[in-house]
Amino acid sequence: MRFLLLSGMGFNPILIVLSLLFLRLHGSVASPDSIIRILPEGRDNYSHRKIPREVYQQCESWRFTVETNDAGPFSRIPSECASFVKDYVTGYAYISDSEAVADASIAFAKTVQLAGDGKDVWIFDVDETLLSNLPYYADHGFGSEIFDEKIFNAWIDLAEAPVLPASLRLYRELLQLGFKIVLLTGRDESQREVTEKNLYNAGYSNWERLLLRGPSDRGKTATLFKSEKRKELEDAGYRIQGSSGDQWSDLNGFAVATRSFKLPNPMYSFL
Amino acid sequence: MRFLLLSGMGFNPILIVLSLLFLRLHGSVASPDSIIRILPEGRDNYSHRKIPREVYQQCESWRFTVETNDAGPFSRIPSECASFVKDYVTGYAYISDSEAVADASIAFAKTVQLAGDGKDVWIFDVDETLLSNLPYYADHGFGSEIFDEKIFNAWIDLAEAPVLPASLRLYRELLQLGFKIVLLTGRDESQREVTEKNLYNAGYSNWERLLLRGPSDRGKTATLFKSEKRKELEDAGYRIQGSSGDQWSDLNGFAVATRSFKLPNPMYSFL
Repeated sequence: MRFLLLSGMGFNPILIVLSLLFLRLHGSVASPDSIIRILPEGRDNYSHRKIPREVYQQCESWRFTVETNDAGPFSRIPSECASFVKDYVTGYAYISDSEAVADASIAFAKTVQLAGDGKDVWIFDVDETLLSNLPYYADHGFGSEIFDEKIFNAWIDLAEAPVLPASLRLYRELLQLGFKIVLLTGRDESQREVTEKNLYNAGYSNWERLLLRGPSDRGKTATLFKSEKRKELEDAGYRIQGSSGDQWSDLNGFAVATRSFKLPNPMYSFL
Repeated sequence: MRFLLLSGMGFNPILIVLSLLFLRLHGSVASPDSIIRILPEGRDNYSHRKIPREVYQQCESWRFTVETNDAGPFSRIPSECASFVKDYVTGYAYISDSEAVADASIAFAKTVQLAGDGKDVWIFDVDETLLSNLPYYADHGFGSEIFDEKIFNAWIDLAEAPVLPASLRLYRELLQLGFKIVLLTGRDESQREVTEKNLYNAGYSNWERLLLRGPSDRGKTATLFKSEKRKELEDAGYRIQGSSGDQWSDLNGFAVATRSFKLPNPMYSFL
């Protein structure tokens, strides 16, 4: 019913969150052997009625190059793909892709032999990984506007970013399995309090560490900053088994995890 | 006209090759500023008329996890996705994704300052990168059958694998720009002659080296074998600027290229 209402409407963060929650609860009803999930009624990005098919395919191929790291960093999405990206991130495809990444992550996590010494770690990025800034991006062209750090930080300070349900499912499963969880974000140390508040409100808890950019980290690329922090964890005796992030800069560099998991994000990409 | 003929027909390698050639010649007619290409008439995977939409979306999400390396290696595609993979690799989406990767590769290549000493190198994998084994996979379930090395090698020995046009376009552009080209393949040294013959027939020439698995490389993972060979190139004074491959094992490991380019391949994935 909620989904039938959604199909003809514009972007509405509250309904998105409701639908995300719905999917978290009901998204994986198929048999464990099957990768097929039941598609909620009306949540259909499948027919793409509003985007000409040439534009659609070219934007799909552009998205391929973004998600494989072939495109490299970019500051704005191609203007032709603004509607495509909006449909993707507000539709079922994004949820479905996110759930598939969580499934792959859990499948790997279950194969890890934990030593039981509390040193087996899984690292999570925060933005577009644990939390979604979709309400912000919906108000700012889904990546088609030049990024304005000031306006974005004002959004962050609200501590209202909704949960990404697939990641919360993975997060809880990892805790259950006995992993220690480290949060590693490009957010500034000055945003620690609002970040913690937002994470708690979104359902996250019991992380081992929350690592943010300190004064000496400012100006570093995300790849370097996050590699250095991973190296410090390794030097402290942690074994980084898994890492989840929507940016390749969350995952690449040095001191990388045994397995890294790239979450979908066609809206932005930085080094 | 040829494409109208294709749309209602089963897989036909000769028509596929013709369509690939057509696209190579006519695939990039839009203005250079635009990422939009003209979709050839009748080559339409867009409406996916034959695959139920639930299955379609789940297979799309599975493909996301494959192409981002989230899925890790697998020996067979999910049986539910056999039709999906067939439609993808024999349809326009695969061609479009391949062209987009070539575009991204060329965009990067043009930014490289070549030293002019003949040491700036671009590495290509062979199978599903320069050459397409689609005719073989069409006869063997598009990745849904267990891989049989003997039967595959008999196909390789025919030296009839068609060109991947987007890669030939990139290859020629790189030569033009002054890069040296190294071919690095998991094929065995015993297949050198048929591989060269096939490459020449497909339009490739003027490579610097063709590196295959020697007796001491057998049993190594592709990642290790290819990393070792890249290391040898670096030790010989080459600068590996770019690398193109359909497998993450072509690109990851050590002595990696400045930029790596992942080509699409949902049919198989190995370490």
